[in-house]
Amino acid sequence: MNILVLNGPNLNLLGDRDKDTYGTNKLSDIESGLRKSYPAFDFRFLQSNHEGALIDAIHEARHGNIDGLIANWGGFTHTSVAIRDALELLAIPKVEVHLSNIHGREEFRETSITGKMMNGIITGFGAYSYHLGVEAVKHLRQRG
Amino acid sequence: MNILVLNGPNLNLLGDRDKDTYGTNKLSDIESGLRKSYPAFDFRFLQSNHEGALIDAIHEARHGNIDGLIANWGGFTHTSVAIRDALELLAIPKVEVHLSNIHGREEFRETSITGKMMNGIITGFGAYSYHLGVEAVKHLRQRG
Amino acid sequence: MNILVLNGPNLNLLGDRDKDTYGTNKLSDIESGLRKSYPAFDFRFLQSNHEGALIDAIHEARHGNIDGLIANWGGFTHTSVAIRDALELLAIPKVEVHLSNIHGREEFRETSITGKMMNGIITGFGAYSYHLGVEAVKHLRQRG
Amino acid sequence: MNILVLNGPNLNLLGDRDKDTYGTNKLSDIESGLRKSYPAFDFRFLQSNHEGALIDAIHEARHGNIDGLIANWGGFTHTSVAIRDALELLAIPKVEVHLSNIHGREEFRETSITGKMMNGIITGFGAYSYHLGVEAVKHLRQRG
Amino acid sequence: MNILVLNGPNLNLLGDRDKDTYGTNKLSDIESGLRKSYPAFDFRFLQSNHEGALIDAIHEARHGNIDGLIANWGGFTHTSVAIRDALELLAIPKVEVHLSNIHGREEFRETSITGKMMNGIITGFGAYSYHLGVEAVKHLRQRG
Amino acid sequence: MNILVLNGPNLNLLGDRDKDTYGTNKLSDIESGLRKSYPAFDFRFLQSNHEGALIDAIHEARHGNIDGLIANWGGFTHTSVAIRDALELLAIPKVEVHLSNIHGREEFRETSITGKMMNGIITGFGAYSYHLGVEAVKHLRQRG
Amino acid sequence: MNILVLNGPNLNLLGDRDKDTYGTNKLSDIESGLRKSYPAFDFRFLQSNHEGALIDAIHEARHGNIDGLIANWGGFTHTSVAIRDALELLAIPKVEVHLSNIHGREEFRETSITGKMMNGIITGFGAYSYHLGVEAVKHLRQRG
Amino acid sequence: MNILVLNGPNLNLLGDRDKDTYGTNKLSDIESGLRKSYPAFDFRFLQSNHEGALIDAIHEARHGNIDGLIANWGGFTHTSVAIRDALELLAIPKVEVHLSNIHGREEFRETSITGKMMNGIITGFGAYSYHLGVEAVKHLRQRG
Amino acid sequence: MNILVLNGPNLNLLGDRDKDTYGTNKLSDIESGLRKSYPAFDFRFLQSNHEGALIDAIHEARHGNIDGLIANWGGFTHTSVAIRDALELLAIPKVEVHLSNIHGREEFRETSITGKMMNGIITGFGAYSYHLGVEAVKHLRQRG
Amino acid sequence: MNILVLNGPNLNLLGDRDKDTYGTNKLSDIESGLRKSYPAFDFRFLQSNHEGALIDAIHEARHGNIDGLIANWGGFTHTSVAIRDALELLAIPKVEVHLSNIHGREEFRETSITGKMMNGIITGFGAYSYHLGVEAVKHLRQRG
Amino acid sequence: MNILVLNGPNLNLLGDRDKDTYGTNKLSDIESGLRKSYPAFDFRFLQSNHEGALIDAIHEARHGNIDGLIANWGGFTHTSVAIRDALELLAIPKVEVHLSNIHGREEFRETSITGKMMNGIITGFGAYSYHLGVEAVKHLRQRG
Amino acid sequence: MNILVLNGPNLNLLGDRDKDTYGTNKLSDIESGLRKSYPAFDFRFLQSNHEGALIDAIHEARHGNIDGLIANWGGFTHTSVAIRDALELLAIPKVEVHLSNIHGREEFRETSITGKMMNGIITGFGAYSYHLGVEAVKHLRQRG
Repeated sequence: MNILVLNGPNLNLLGDRDKDTYGTNKLSDIESGLRKSYPAFDFRFLQSNHEGALIDAIHEARHGNIDGLIANWGGFTHTSVAIRDALELLAIPKVEVHLSNIHGREEFRETSITGKMMNGIITGFGAYSYHLGVEAVKHLRQRG
Repeated sequence: MNILVLNGPNLNLLGDRDKDTYGTNKLSDIESGLRKSYPAFDFRFLQSNHEGALIDAIHEARHGNIDGLIANWGGFTHTSVAIRDALELLAIPKVEVHLSNIHGREEFRETSITGKMMNGIITGFGAYSYHLGVEAVKHLRQRG
Repeated sequence: MNILVLNGPNLNLLGDRDKDTYGTNKLSDIESGLRKSYPAFDFRFLQSNHEGALIDAIHEARHGNIDGLIANWGGFTHTSVAIRDALELLAIPKVEVHLSNIHGREEFRETSITGKMMNGIITGFGAYSYHLGVEAVKHLRQRG
Repeated sequence: MNILVLNGPNLNLLGDRDKDTYGTNKLSDIESGLRKSYPAFDFRFLQSNHEGALIDAIHEARHGNIDGLIANWGGFTHTSVAIRDALELLAIPKVEVHLSNIHGREEFRETSITGKMMNGIITGFGAYSYHLGVEAVKHLRQRG
Repeated sequence: MNILVLNGPNLNLLGDRDKDTYGTNKLSDIESGLRKSYPAFDFRFLQSNHEGALIDAIHEARHGNIDGLIANWGGFTHTSVAIRDALELLAIPKVEVHLSNIHGREEFRETSITGKMMNGIITGFGAYSYHLGVEAVKHLRQRG
Repeated sequence: MNILVLNGPNLNLLGDRDKDTYGTNKLSDIESGLRKSYPAFDFRFLQSNHEGALIDAIHEARHGNIDGLIANWGGFTHTSVAIRDALELLAIPKVEVHLSNIHGREEFRETSITGKMMNGIITGFGAYSYHLGVEAVKHLRQRG
Repeated sequence: MNILVLNGPNLNLLGDRDKDTYGTNKLSDIESGLRKSYPAFDFRFLQSNHEGALIDAIHEARHGNIDGLIANWGGFTHTSVAIRDALELLAIPKVEVHLSNIHGREEFRETSITGKMMNGIITGFGAYSYHLGVEAVKHLRQRG
Repeated sequence: MNILVLNGPNLNLLGDRDKDTYGTNKLSDIESGLRKSYPAFDFRFLQSNHEGALIDAIHEARHGNIDGLIANWGGFTHTSVAIRDALELLAIPKVEVHLSNIHGREEFRETSITGKMMNGIITGFGAYSYHLGVEAVKHLRQRG
Repeated sequence: MNILVLNGPNLNLLGDRDKDTYGTNKLSDIESGLRKSYPAFDFRFLQSNHEGALIDAIHEARHGNIDGLIANWGGFTHTSVAIRDALELLAIPKVEVHLSNIHGREEFRETSITGKMMNGIITGFGAYSYHLGVEAVKHLRQRG
Repeated sequence: MNILVLNGPNLNLLGDRDKDTYGTNKLSDIESGLRKSYPAFDFRFLQSNHEGALIDAIHEARHGNIDGLIANWGGFTHTSVAIRDALELLAIPKVEVHLSNIHGREEFRETSITGKMMNGIITGFGAYSYHLGVEAVKHLRQRG
Repeated sequence: MNILVLNGPNLNLLGDRDKDTYGTNKLSDIESGLRKSYPAFDFRFLQSNHEGALIDAIHEARHGNIDGLIANWGGFTHTSVAIRDALELLAIPKVEVHLSNIHGREEFRETSITGKMMNGIITGFGAYSYHLGVEAVKHLRQRG
Repeated sequence: MNILVLNGPNLNLLGDRDKDTYGTNKLSDIESGLRKSYPAFDFRFLQSNHEGALIDAIHEARHGNIDGLIANWGGFTHTSVAIRDALELLAIPKVEVHLSNIHGREEFRETSITGKMMNGIITGFGAYSYHLGVEAVKHLRQRG
């Protein structure tokens, strides 16, 4: 199974960032963790601080043989109508993940503009949210 | 591992209810599915349409040897300060699950009052949200 | 015809309560009045101050041979998402009644969360609202 | 008994209009239906798309021997302070009716500015709302 | 003097709960403290996590020889229209108490729906708020 | 001096209407009062319940030899963008008057949409507001 | 092709009105301009300051052989639920035009209640907005 | 007749201040103008930039033989609950005046907290608002 | 024990003011009542209509040997950020009192800006609120 | 005439995207359609999912010999203050176009932040909105 | 150069106050620091907890030979329309300073009512904000 | 000292842009002005219209030997959660500058999302805001 994993702004600094909230995993740790846990899967990782680059990547996913999308949109989760519109056009299973519980932080983080166009959201389990995301994509594909 | 699974109002009718939104699983199907998938685990299930009964159950979980809570608060998710306060006192791993994506429905369902006091939330994967909930509880216990 | 009449919190005190707003009928007067006016009908009355008990009663109405529901949700009208969700699952004619005109009182009483899932609402005619409710249920059944 | 039946904007097109929401009765069908059901009553019907004409009619009702008012203010229900003020001056029984359930449609239809000055509101029973309105007026007159 | 002391959801856990905010008194300590300080008084205590049970208790207070009510509605303070309506019918002195200062916490705790129907509110003095509540009831009875 | 006095909806019923709020003067009393107090002035009076008729009258005032406008827009004060736009085009002195103090009633009466396009507003002095209005117009003309 | 051109309140004064915002064209200039540009078309023009007259005209358009509607609702754009409801019933191409850019003025002009029921809106091109409106109607008819 | 004229913050600078909005009259010009126009009246003038001094003056007016109050609260109009409460206790005729039209400026100036406790408000006629205020006080005393 | 009792605007008129809401006690009655009830205590009373004088008094309380503060901020309760900031710096027990129940009056009185910086609030018991305030200060000192 | 046509995020997928809302034209169809309809014009097309690239293009248009701008900002219409600021600096005719009627979709699409800095907006005519945009630019240049 | 330095409520306690937020400088330290850093300048310092005293000082600055104003309005920053109006009349350079970053604290501190009438604002640099304020005044005078 | 100076969207056009608001300095003038005033400092300048490029630059500043950041985020100030999150991770002194006073313009410019994560903000002094920014950075470094 081919899974695209998109990470939005500032997630390249994971592990450096506020350790109480996000833990000490680096993004590369998450990547290697996923590859190790799911050796039969083909993961494509992209992190960008550029909203446009993420939209481009969503568009490309429509034509590659991608079976599912796992995405952590970072700060764009709460502001980007453009990512939302891009997601509306992507018909594969789409799972939004967040490291911290977005319902337990500042009020403006409780609204997920992007999440309205995802199949579901997994929020609050640190790096493990990505693993649950893979399980969710697997389930969505089986359910067809 | 002992896991308490609490279900709030109307979830006893699962399977009857709006099939487009919630699928055709009955609550008993979810229960037997969990037991089958995790034969080594001890699950205690409680469904109630009574807010007070759910609060009582949260309180009791503090003294039984419960290792984790998986809860779908149904309509109380968006209205119950009392359940929120009860959860604040419960120190075990707590995972909120929803069958449908609460960010993709009516606006009033986007706010989770209870979710602020949970470790994380899994929303939008139908009955499979509960399975992901078990995985999340396992992870939270290991991480300690 | 079998009609279920549900009354929510504080309606057991009807007649005692603010007489300017609600009149001097007791709930038992309303019950006997309905039985007298519609001798061929079978009425089942339930009043409860417990939200959960009302939800349970809505659920049971799905399996008994109930032809219509008349309900005065009292204070739950403006707060209960859980009753709203229960009503969504009940396919028989459903008529919400209020003794006083909910549009002529405090602003928070103008929103009916439950009413969105009822066929219609009759508000402002005192105990007679229940009689109009029976007429409305009769009409809804005939119209099929 | 003399009953004035006022209909606001667009109700002249009833039956043409969105059939799913409003049914197939024409306004003339409602009129003839009322006359047939209540042969002893004297009904005066007025439909107007002009807010001022409706206010004029409310004023005139103060001096004719009108025993009760049944009114469907259409779109003016949600916007007209002027009709509201006119109603405040009319001391006869006043019943507001709506074909569709105003609590089950767009959010802006949930507020009834006019309804605050009516005795009660009957909403959601199609053309039959008018029949229930006659029953309500009868009751209000008897109660004195 | 007979005083009814009602405690709402989660107050049964007092002493366990967030000690910085609520102190280390248990609810039973408060009860015995009141009995000891006011040996001539007859206190009736009820704690419940069930909104309906609290409403039932308010109703019963109308017919027992209760001279005053002291109540801590917990989380229901901010959400329960039904308790508010029940209190409107109870003519004895009614004093609302809170352990912590509701004006110094989350914004949603600043609104007291129930408090609008109480004689007064005492908030922020820990268990001693109940003692001040007894003094307030005594005063209200004397002032008659 | 030629003064146009426009009165909006329901002012034809003045004297009948809520006497506590508006006093017992009829509109014709106000008219004769003004003529008597200002015998040298030429008053043109128009009352209408029709928003369009009032707009037409504002338009006509642009071409007649009208020296000033005194207007009580009644309920349209708070809702009519169209009257506001008409007033923007009328270059003579314009004084808005109200019988009751619009700042001391319901909150929705505190906003004057029309008043933004008037020179000034006189509110709260009953029929005498019109007399003050004439004085204000005189002053505005002198100041030129 | 038969095109109905409706103009709402104050547009009869076009050319007199605030020249910076609206330019110096009179409404009759717009009419003759359209007739000259589209000699093969049959235009019917109606301007009214009366909301009801505009609604009547919308209703009549349903039965005449009108191929398209171009309308500038003036101040009613932002306030009239009744015009909105009338438009919902009219199945021909409907184009809303505005002389000035409604998004570049006062905040209350940014919401178009009527526009929700039109095919599209052309705003900000002065009198030329009407010409673009004719082009838009032509296109909508061809597209069928 | 004894009239107290209170002027709030910054009115001592009248004439210096934004001349487009307020004109070129100084406060002393207004005072001498009033004395000249009403030679038989006894005016007491107080201007203060101190909210407390204005409240003190309102209190003193209760015991002196003051027949009426004319007040321009300046910026306190929109913020002072304390002046509002003081006015509630003063039973003589009370007229609020403003030089500019408070409905035609910034939105925050449209709310008059103090005005709710005045008999009426005169706004928008420059220094002449005070003269109209005297007329209004005379009328209110006569009406008694 | 030395207790500072601060009273804000208009409380000097107590007893004159709206008797239904506030009772007939004068402020001097409250003072003598407190001295009589607590003969061993040293009370310092200050009433002022000047926000700045109250802030000055709060500042001085930091250096005198004041053991506790009882304060009724009157209208400043709902508007004064400056008093709030002053209270933040005062480390002695601080109790806010109100004669009437601030939760049972106008909506703007429900927010206590000052109360966020007080230990607790006692509201609704007339002059007796001050006596309860003394009890609360005593308790806070003992608790240390 | 040289016309710059800017298209924002996701418009590269036109034709694939929700066909009910946007029709089946591809963006390249729109481009070739414009070139064919206006053979004498020089069109420069740029589509980008990057907000910054669009701002860069707006800046460059200031120095090239561009006679007019037609732009569909896509999702940035409702969120981008930065594009708005860039447009403020561009003095050529600027026309905003939208395929669907932004007033007839989700509420958040009704506000056009960018549109405040455009000459006008054309919304709701599918690909033909661009053709109307060219006509509008032509008109704006002639009016010059 | 003559510079007036105004300090609002509670700034006299600087150094005592919350040391994490405001640092340990006393207001006299700031004063001596400024005099030492700018020996050629003439500073006039005024601190007051009285809004009126600050307004008086602003007024006086109009007639003294004051070259610039540096002001920290403390809690009045967020509430005082009266200070705002006073500043509007003062034509010299005006710089608002804050010790802490007003955008990084409670939400109500983010709005500066006074700041709208200042040339600029410097916020967040502790006592050094005043030094930057002097530099800003110097610059504004040179720029003329 | 090494100082990074970041400029957001449209600041490359400085000097061209609205001269009343921003003055006539070009961005290159500001750069050369800073280098001239602080010859011992090493400035690195970056202007970008791309949000992502600015975030990348913030990230890089963590690893270069940058001693302080001065940033004018332009339109992103009010919209970018992603820049805000990036700033949270950067531990050097951070000063936000604006040319115009953001509190004196449109209401949406009053909120600084980015500013919550800066040490302080300097707004309203034109190009000189950058010079003050350097002084502020120097101070923050010395204070350590």
